[in-house]
Amino acid sequence: MVQLLIGVLMSNSPRIRSAQLTDLDGIVALIQALAEYEKLRDQVTGDPEKLGLHLFGDRPFASALVAEVDQTLVGYALYFFNYSTFKMQPGLYLEDLFVLPEHRRSGIGSALIKAVAKEAVAKGCVRYEWTVLDWNQPAIEFYQKMGAEVLPDWRVCRVTGEALRRLGGG
Amino acid sequence: MVQLLIGVLMSNSPRIRSAQLTDLDGIVALIQALAEYEKLRDQVTGDPEKLGLHLFGDRPFASALVAEVDQTLVGYALYFFNYSTFKMQPGLYLEDLFVLPEHRRSGIGSALIKAVAKEAVAKGCVRYEWTVLDWNQPAIEFYQKMGAEVLPDWRVCRVTGEALRRLGGG
Repeated sequence: MVQLLIGVLMSNSPRIRSAQLTDLDGIVALIQALAEYEKLRDQVTGDPEKLGLHLFGDRPFASALVAEVDQTLVGYALYFFNYSTFKMQPGLYLEDLFVLPEHRRSGIGSALIKAVAKEAVAKGCVRYEWTVLDWNQPAIEFYQKMGAEVLPDWRVCRVTGEALRRLGGG
Repeated sequence: MVQLLIGVLMSNSPRIRSAQLTDLDGIVALIQALAEYEKLRDQVTGDPEKLGLHLFGDRPFASALVAEVDQTLVGYALYFFNYSTFKMQPGLYLEDLFVLPEHRRSGIGSALIKAVAKEAVAKGCVRYEWTVLDWNQPAIEFYQKMGAEVLPDWRVCRVTGEALRRLGGG
């Protein structure tokens, strides 16, 4: 009985691993689920084939880890390198972290955050960063407990679409 | 007289160009000047040789443009790619923008911002981002006039040093 129970637990325990090309459809589905969750489904306008190239091609723009339960992807973390000119060393930026709602509260999110931190340490990164919404107090407290400092006074400036074409066209 | 004046003006007009390995010492001096200006001089602890590798090696982490007046570097912009999973296309992040105080108010800063925007457009980037301090109202207004949106509610989380080693060590 105990062994059976252990067997059941083991088959359900998540496995965190580097994403590979065969995960592409699963990652795209998770990106769509993240957008759905954020009520931004209509903003997912990308071409999955390009994502495949950008994650797994010769000159990748980003990397991903996936969380797998029973051979099904239930979460992912997507990250890339940034750079500190003061330390003259790369940093690591976590762009997306998502776990399917039905698989939350079992530590998969923090396992993904830690696995990316491990990657940052292995690659000699001097910092590990991401962003959080200022009203998301539970998330802020969770990140602070992990050792993150939440920078109070920096704001992100963003130029997109027509404004970007205009700015870059001169 | 007119020709002479034009000659003087031309020799003083800044030239914006891609950085190359021979600019390394000049870029390091500008990074130090930026840190000095921000009263963070003691935080410049990096190894310039590594910066050279990270900017000009086979697998660069970042790229730089420089502004040159009379063969002297007077400003730089350092940037790298980030990634939008919704658009499945790279974005461009401007990490540093600096012009020596004595060369300001002559358009070098906006020329650098625009030259990086041009690079973003050329590389098919769907967004161009940087950060600004929330109390720096003149900068915020300047960026908004350029077409930038200042995101009000996102905060940067950062893990460094011992906290990063701890988080990534598990």
